[in-house]
Amino acid sequence: MATPEVFKTCAAMREYCDGARAGGMSVGFVPTMGALHEGHISLMRRARGENDRLVVSIFVNPTQFGPGEDIEEYPRDLSGDLDSCLGVDADAVFAPTAREMYEPGACTFVEQSVLTEVLCGAFRPTHFKGVLTVVAKLFNVVGPCRAYFGQKDYQQCVVIRRMVRDLNVPVEVVMCPIVREPDGIAMSSRNNYLSQEERSDALCLSQALAIAKKRLKQGERRSSELVAAMRNHINNVKSATIDYVAVVHPDTLQPVSVIEDRAVAALAVRIGSTRLIDNAILGDE
Amino acid sequence: MATPEVFKTCAAMREYCDGARAGGMSVGFVPTMGALHEGHISLMRRARGENDRLVVSIFVNPTQFGPGEDIEEYPRDLSGDLDSCLGVDADAVFAPTAREMYEPGACTFVEQSVLTEVLCGAFRPTHFKGVLTVVAKLFNVVGPCRAYFGQKDYQQCVVIRRMVRDLNVPVEVVMCPIVREPDGIAMSSRNNYLSQEERSDALCLSQALAIAKKRLKQGERRSSELVAAMRNHINNVKSATIDYVAVVHPDTLQPVSVIEDRAVAALAVRIGSTRLIDNAILGDE
Repeated sequence: MATPEVFKTCAAMREYCDGARAGGMSVGFVPTMGALHEGHISLMRRARGENDRLVVSIFVNPTQFGPGEDIEEYPRDLSGDLDSCLGVDADAVFAPTAREMYEPGACTFVEQSVLTEVLCGAFRPTHFKGVLTVVAKLFNVVGPCRAYFGQKDYQQCVVIRRMVRDLNVPVEVVMCPIVREPDGIAMSSRNNYLSQEERSDALCLSQALAIAKKRLKQGERRSSELVAAMRNHINNVKSATIDYVAVVHPDTLQPVSVIEDRAVAALAVRIGSTRLIDNAILGDE
Repeated sequence: MATPEVFKTCAAMREYCDGARAGGMSVGFVPTMGALHEGHISLMRRARGENDRLVVSIFVNPTQFGPGEDIEEYPRDLSGDLDSCLGVDADAVFAPTAREMYEPGACTFVEQSVLTEVLCGAFRPTHFKGVLTVVAKLFNVVGPCRAYFGQKDYQQCVVIRRMVRDLNVPVEVVMCPIVREPDGIAMSSRNNYLSQEERSDALCLSQALAIAKKRLKQGERRSSELVAAMRNHINNVKSATIDYVAVVHPDTLQPVSVIEDRAVAALAVRIGSTRLIDNAILGDE
C-alpha cells in the first residue's frame, strides 16, 4: 500500500481524476469532513472494493454550519485522517482550504425545497443549501462514478440523491449502513463532544429506535404510537432535549400515519449542548 | 455531411457524449431554445471549428419564463432548426420534452445572488434561476469541453461563467460576438414578434448603443451622460418603453460612474409588447 497522494487545489485534484478516467478507470468518492471514524472507514472500504481509484475528501465545509453552530469546535485531525486513508488503501485525498473552495465573490448555490424543509432542515435552515453546494462542487472537481454516504445522515442521502436526479449529475449515490459502537450509539465525529455521563445518556437515541422497531414487530403500525414511545423513552433522560422524533416516508421524508411497507424513524436529540441524530429503516426485516 | 443524430432522452444523449469522450474526442456544446437564426449559427460554426463533436440542444425551457411572459408564443420550428444544424454539420441534436427535463417532484435549483439581481434580473426575478438550473442540467447531460453563448445575452454569459467558476463545472464558457441584421438590429428569435412598423422602431436599441460608443470616442467618459443620451434617443420612439439603460462593469455588472477601461452598455426596451435587449462593450476599440 502506498501513501495516498494529497491534493490541496481543485485543479490538481481534477487533473488526477481526469487522468484516471482517461485511463478507463472508475473513480469512487467518499466526501467527508474528516475526524474519520469506523463509519467513514466502512464507506471507504466499500468504495475501495467497487472502484479502480478511491478518492476521499476532507473538508470542514463552513457553509453547512449555521450561526452559533459548532464549526470552531468541530474535531480536526488531518494526520490521523491520512493514516485512516492509508489504512484503507485510498489513492488520493482532497484536502482544500476554505479559500480554495470558495473564491471571493462566490454567489452561486444549489438549493432544494420540500425535502430540505423537514426534519433537520427545519432546525438548520441553511444547512442543506451548504451541503448541496459543496457536494455539487466536489462532484464537479472529482467527477466520480460512485459516491458513498452514510445512512446515519439519512436526510442528507435523500437530499443528495434528489439533487443528482434533478440536476442530472452523472454519479451513482451509494448509501451505506450505519456503523454503531458495541453499545448501540451511532458513530459520529460529534460523539467526541460528550462527557462520560453524556455518552451514557446518548444511548437513548439508539434505544428509542430499538423500541420503535420492537413495537412495530409486535404489530403496532401507527406512527403516532411509535413516536410517543420513542419520545417517552428519551424524555426520561434528564440531559436530553428533543429536536424532533418522526416516522417518515423513506423517499419523500413526509410523515406517514400508518406504516404500510417501509418507513424511516428519524430523530435529533441534544444531549447537553451536543446535537446528535440517528435513524432506523422500519419494515426492513 | 450527415444528418445530425437527434436525441430525445437525457440517457441517450449522455451515452452518445460518453462515447465521444471515451474515444478521446472533445465535445463542443451550443444550448439554444431553437428558432435558430444567424446568431445561433455563428455559435455553432465556432463550436464546429473548435471541437471534434458538436452537440446542439433545442429546448424551450419553461422555468426561465416568468408568469405572463411569452412561453406560449415563443417561436418553435424543429424541422427548420434541424436543417440549420445539418447546415453547420452538427453531430447531434438534443431535443428533450419538458417532462424529460423536469421529473415530477423536481425541487433542486441552481441560484445565484448579486449578478442576477441587476439589469434583466431586476425585471425578471426568476429568469436566471431557470437559466442556471437548465444549463447546469444540460452541462451534466452533455459534459462538454466548451459551451458557446452569444454576447447578445451578456448578463446570461456573465451569470453562467460565474456559476461555472463557483460550482467548479469542468467546462470552458465561450462568449461569441453579437450578430446583427444589415440595419444594425441584434438577431433575436423575438424579432419575429415585431410588426413592420415595430421592426423599424426597434432600431432605436442598436442606434442608442452606437450613440454611446460615439460619445465615448469623443471623450465623454461619464456614464450618466452616456445613459442620458441613450435614453433620450429611445424616448423619441413612441412604441418604445425602457426597462433599463445602464453602463456597468463587464464582470460585476455593477454600475460604473466613470468609464476607466472597459464597460458594457446594456439596455432592455419594450417595443409594443415585445421585450428586446441589446448591449455593446465600450472601450473595446
